[in-house]
Amino acid sequence: MSHYHPLSETEAVELAKSIKDVFTTEDPLACREIGDGNLNLVFRVTQPATGAGVIIKQALPYAKVVGESWPLTLDRARIESESLIIQGKLAPGLVPQVYKTDNDLALTVMEDLSDHVIMRRGLMEGGIYPKFVEDISEFMARTLFFTSDLGMNQQEKKGLVRSFSNPELCKITEDLIFDDPYIDSPNNSFDEHLREDAAQLWKDTELHLEAALLREKFLTQAQALLHGDLHTGSIFITPESTKVIDPEFAYYGPMGFDIGAVLANLLLNYAAQEHWSEDAAARKERRNYLIQSVHDIWTSFERKFRTLWNEHGVDRMSKTPGYQDIYIHRLLQDTFGFTGAKMIRRIVGLAHVADIDKIPDPEVRKKAQRMALSIGKTLMMSNRKAMSIQEMIDIAESAVLA
Amino acid sequence: MSHYHPLSETEAVELAKSIKDVFTTEDPLACREIGDGNLNLVFRVTQPATGAGVIIKQALPYAKVVGESWPLTLDRARIESESLIIQGKLAPGLVPQVYKTDNDLALTVMEDLSDHVIMRRGLMEGGIYPKFVEDISEFMARTLFFTSDLGMNQQEKKGLVRSFSNPELCKITEDLIFDDPYIDSPNNSFDEHLREDAAQLWKDTELHLEAALLREKFLTQAQALLHGDLHTGSIFITPESTKVIDPEFAYYGPMGFDIGAVLANLLLNYAAQEHWSEDAAARKERRNYLIQSVHDIWTSFERKFRTLWNEHGVDRMSKTPGYQDIYIHRLLQDTFGFTGAKMIRRIVGLAHVADIDKIPDPEVRKKAQRMALSIGKTLMMSNRKAMSIQEMIDIAESAVLA
Repeated sequence: MSHYHPLSETEAVELAKSIKDVFTTEDPLACREIGDGNLNLVFRVTQPATGAGVIIKQALPYAKVVGESWPLTLDRARIESESLIIQGKLAPGLVPQVYKTDNDLALTVMEDLSDHVIMRRGLMEGGIYPKFVEDISEFMARTLFFTSDLGMNQQEKKGLVRSFSNPELCKITEDLIFDDPYIDSPNNSFDEHLREDAAQLWKDTELHLEAALLREKFLTQAQALLHGDLHTGSIFITPESTKVIDPEFAYYGPMGFDIGAVLANLLLNYAAQEHWSEDAAARKERRNYLIQSVHDIWTSFERKFRTLWNEHGVDRMSKTPGYQDIYIHRLLQDTFGFTGAKMIRRIVGLAHVADIDKIPDPEVRKKAQRMALSIGKTLMMSNRKAMSIQEMIDIAESAVLA
Repeated sequence: MSHYHPLSETEAVELAKSIKDVFTTEDPLACREIGDGNLNLVFRVTQPATGAGVIIKQALPYAKVVGESWPLTLDRARIESESLIIQGKLAPGLVPQVYKTDNDLALTVMEDLSDHVIMRRGLMEGGIYPKFVEDISEFMARTLFFTSDLGMNQQEKKGLVRSFSNPELCKITEDLIFDDPYIDSPNNSFDEHLREDAAQLWKDTELHLEAALLREKFLTQAQALLHGDLHTGSIFITPESTKVIDPEFAYYGPMGFDIGAVLANLLLNYAAQEHWSEDAAARKERRNYLIQSVHDIWTSFERKFRTLWNEHGVDRMSKTPGYQDIYIHRLLQDTFGFTGAKMIRRIVGLAHVADIDKIPDPEVRKKAQRMALSIGKTLMMSNRKAMSIQEMIDIAESAVLA
C-alpha cells in the first residue's frame, strides 16, 4: 500500500486491525465511510464485540465546494497529522489521539470520538458546555505559546515554519476571508435580500483598509503554529470534554487568527439566536451564556498565556518590563480584527455557517445575518483601537439593541 | 568533485577553466587565495594574457571570529548563490554575475570585481560615490518589493520563505544585534573607556523594550527576501558602479532591517569623521555629504517602492486607499529602529566597524563611539513615533552639537 489510492472499506478494516492498542481481541471489525466526500474519506471502523473503534481520515486529491471541484494537495494530510501530534503533546487530551499516519496514502488513524458532537450542532441545539472555556483557552494558550519564539528554541521554530509551509490551504483563506467578501466576486454567495448590504461592503474602503492590514498579518507574521480553521465545526464536544480536530489549514501565522475564529463562531451563533431561542427571555439567557464565554475565553487565554510566559519563556529579551503588556495588547487587537473578518465572510463569502443558514424564515434569517455583519464590521473597524475585551461584549450587545 | 573538501589552488584553476564565457582563450590562468580565512576561501583566478578573471568563493565549515571557532552550515553557500541569482534578475547590474554554483562544494564562481573597492574602505578614504544613492535605493526597492507579497505570487513567495530558511545565520544576528549589547555578555567587546556607557545600556530597560520589539520583528515578520547583512563592507563600489555582495545572511525578514543596515553604516562613518576629516570645515562638508546620502537613500527608496507598487502590485487588496501610506510609514519606523540597533551593536557588541575601530587616538575614538551610541539610542527610542526621515537627520546633527 505504498502508492496513493483512495482506500476501500476492506482496506480500511485491514489497516485498522494493525492498531493493536485499540483492537486488543480478534473479534470482527465493521466499517462505514461517514465523510461527506468533499475533501476527505472518513472511515469509522468499530469492533461490536468490544465497543472499540478508530477513525481513518484520508485526504482526497481534490476539493469539492458548492459543486466546483479543484485539485488540492495531499500534503495537507501530513500537515494535519503532524500538527495533531504536536498539539497532542502540548495540550494533552484536547485533540484526538493519533495511532498511525501514512503520508503516501495521505491518511491518519485516530481516536474515535463518536461520543462527542460537533460543537456547532451542539450550540444550535442549545447545548451548555461547562468545560469549554477552560479547554479551548488551554488549547490556544499552550499550542500558541509553545510553538512561538517565546516558548520554544528559535532555531527549531524556523524548522517548523518550513515544515508547516501550507501555500495551497493558505490561498483558500487569503481569497475567501481577506479578498472576495470586499468585492463583487463570483466566489461570494449570499441571500438575495442581502444584496444591498453586500454592495455596501464592496464600497466601504475604510473597512477594506482594515481587511488589507489583517491580510498582511496573515501573509507575513510567522508568530505561532496555528490550527488555521478553528471554528465550532472543528471542535468535538461534550459537557465534560473538548477535542479540537481537522488542523489541515495549520501554518505559522498570527495568533489572533485562531482566537478570532473561536470568538467569531460564538458570535455568529449569538446572532443566530433570533431563531434558535424559544422566546425573548430564552434568547437573552442564551446570548448571555455566549457573550460570557467570549469574555471568559479571552481572559482565561490571557491569564494562561502570561503564566506560561513567566514560567516557561525561553527568550531573555521577552522578559523586558512592558514587553509582555504590549504583546498581549496587540494580540487583543488582532483578535478583534480577525473575529470581525471571520464573521463577515460567513455572511457574504463562499462558505457559510449552519447556525445562520439553517434559519428557515427569511426575515428572521436576514435579521441574524445583518446583526452578524454589523458586529463583524464594527469589530474590524475598531481593531487598531481596541483596549479591552469588554469592548467586544459592548459591540455585540449594541448590535442586538440596534 | 562531488564531496565537499576545501579547494586547492590547482582545483580552483581547473574549475575556472570551465567558465568559457570569461576565459575565451587557452592562455594560462593564475590563482591566488585572497580570503581572510575566517569564513570562506576566496580564490581570484586571472588570465594575465587577456585580463579576464573570476572569483571563486567557497564556504568553510566553520566560522572564526575573534579567535573563537564554531561550526557553521555549508548551506549558506547555497543561500548566497541563490539569492545572488534572484537579486541579479531583480536588480540587474547591482550584484556580481554568477557563472556557476556547486552546492556540494559550497561554492560560487562569480564576476571578478577587482576594479571596485569595498565601500567601507572607500568612505574611510574620503571617496565620493555619485551613483550610490540611486543604485542602493534601486537595489533595495526592487529586491524587497518583488520578493514581497506585494510584488510576487503569494504562493510562490511561501516557497521562497522555505528555501531561504536560514536558522544558523539568523541566530548570529539574533544574538549579536538583538540580545548581547543589552546585557553584560561575554560576546561583547568594547574599549575599556566605554565601560560606563555600556553599563548604562545594560540598565536602560526602556531601550531594551525597543530592542525586544525589533527582535520580535526580526524573528517573525516574513516580509521580503533580505540581503540580511547590508553594511558598507558588503558593497563593492566605484564612482560609476555599485555591486552588493555576500548575501549569505539572506532570509525572509522585515525590509527595514536591510534599509537600516545601509543607513547605520553611513551614520557610523558620519560619527567617525572626528578622525577621518582633516579639519572642522572638511568634517562639516563630509558629514553633509553623508547625511544627505542618508536622506536621499530613504526618499529615493520610497519613491521607487511606491512606483513599483503602483505599476507592478499583484495584490488587489494592497491597492486600497491609505494602505500604501501606512505601509511606508511603518517601513520608515522600522528603519529608524534597525538603524539604531545596528549602530549600537557596532560600538559595544562583538563585531565592530573599521571606520571607528581604526581611529588611533583613544580620545578621538571615544568621542566618535559615544556619538554613534547616542545617535543609535535616540533612533531606537524614537522608532515607534518617527514621522519623517528628516527626524533622522536632525538626530544625527544634534549628536554632533552635543
